[in-house]
Amino acid sequence: MEHHIVSSYDQELKFILRRISEMGGQAERMVEQSVAALIRSDWGLAQAVVADDVLLDAAQRELDERAIMTIAKRQPMAQDLREIVGAIRISNDLERIGDLGKNIAKRVIAVHEHSQPVQLVRGIEHLSELALGQLKDVLDAYATRDHVRAEAIRSGDEEIDAMYTSIFRELLTYMMEDPRNITACTHLLFSAKNIERIGDHATNIAETIYYIKTGNQMETDRPKGDRTTSISDAAVSGAQSA
Amino acid sequence: MEHHIVSSYDQELKFILRRISEMGGQAERMVEQSVAALIRSDWGLAQAVVADDVLLDAAQRELDERAIMTIAKRQPMAQDLREIVGAIRISNDLERIGDLGKNIAKRVIAVHEHSQPVQLVRGIEHLSELALGQLKDVLDAYATRDHVRAEAIRSGDEEIDAMYTSIFRELLTYMMEDPRNITACTHLLFSAKNIERIGDHATNIAETIYYIKTGNQMETDRPKGDRTTSISDAAVSGAQSA
Repeated sequence: MEHHIVSSYDQELKFILRRISEMGGQAERMVEQSVAALIRSDWGLAQAVVADDVLLDAAQRELDERAIMTIAKRQPMAQDLREIVGAIRISNDLERIGDLGKNIAKRVIAVHEHSQPVQLVRGIEHLSELALGQLKDVLDAYATRDHVRAEAIRSGDEEIDAMYTSIFRELLTYMMEDPRNITACTHLLFSAKNIERIGDHATNIAETIYYIKTGNQMETDRPKGDRTTSISDAAVSGAQSA
Repeated sequence: MEHHIVSSYDQELKFILRRISEMGGQAERMVEQSVAALIRSDWGLAQAVVADDVLLDAAQRELDERAIMTIAKRQPMAQDLREIVGAIRISNDLERIGDLGKNIAKRVIAVHEHSQPVQLVRGIEHLSELALGQLKDVLDAYATRDHVRAEAIRSGDEEIDAMYTSIFRELLTYMMEDPRNITACTHLLFSAKNIERIGDHATNIAETIYYIKTGNQMETDRPKGDRTTSISDAAVSGAQSA
């Protein structure tokens, strides 16, 4: 951060940054707990995640208002302005990560009815570990304003996408093997998709860190996201016979 | 809007509002075209939607920057400030609606391989008509700052959720009947989910209009969203035998 004489702007910025750090911790916890609830069929834990989402939404709205008021009152320039704008963007991503955690938690009952094959559960667990790793890394990079590290984080999203693609195929195969798996696997598919999107939001945060530090957009040399959208039957049969 | 002496603030606000209206039209068109592409297996149209999404993203980023600069330079208060903050929120929702259109478009090839039953295609078409109706209504309500109409729009989202729930059940049933339907139906499931989320964003926009006009949050007497998260096998079998 640029050097300032201590001012109200600094105090307001500090408040905003502390809030972001709290929201980050809460979003992490919600994702962790929602996946644990899914895997252990823990309905109580799932309900706790759904309740936490209300708090995270409120925190985001409050941060939004504080940040806007700070811009209006202090008229910050250059990196100071980018700090505030960046905080608004990051809190938005964190709120959406919380939403994704909530969506996973809401599927716990529907998935519970079936015992899932160990392999699938491990896959989803591993996917969530990757996504949580990205989230922790990017929150650390934000705390230290480390835009070089932020750039490196983006490439970690590829691993998440590859893992999601493999889980997507596995789930389809499993549904094809036995129609009784279809309902539960559909909910697992949506859950895996939610985890994959958490990775995308971590990438967004990395891009925001880069913007805060440099004033530029990170180059978009890597298309984000879902590579399963074109997976057809032929591809799934291929995976089955492999 | 409150009465102003003609000022640069007014000109900047006018620019921002014109941009929102353009973005709204573009988001509508992307949703319309993505669903048409899905139904008619029109890969060329799908590609056009994917290309349009880049433009909408850029428009949102530009609007964001303009709006923030306007807040910093003009320090608007009360409804004037809410107009700008509201524009930032609405452009964010429109950008996400465009993303959802793009996601649907990206599934066109995978769905294409199977001919879908007429009933399912009609269902998805009808769902998208409901969502587009909501979007058009809420953009009109925004153009006229009609917060009473905005409140009414929110209740329309219930119909979308009910329709999505019914399509979700139908798709599961169809997958259970014949495993060869599973891959294409999975993509249709994700597409239906994307359309349902467009309805949620229309509701967000309605809530923002209410906030701009009144300075208050709309009462949250209706929980948003997906009621399929707890659909279990028992529920699907029930639908099958009904």
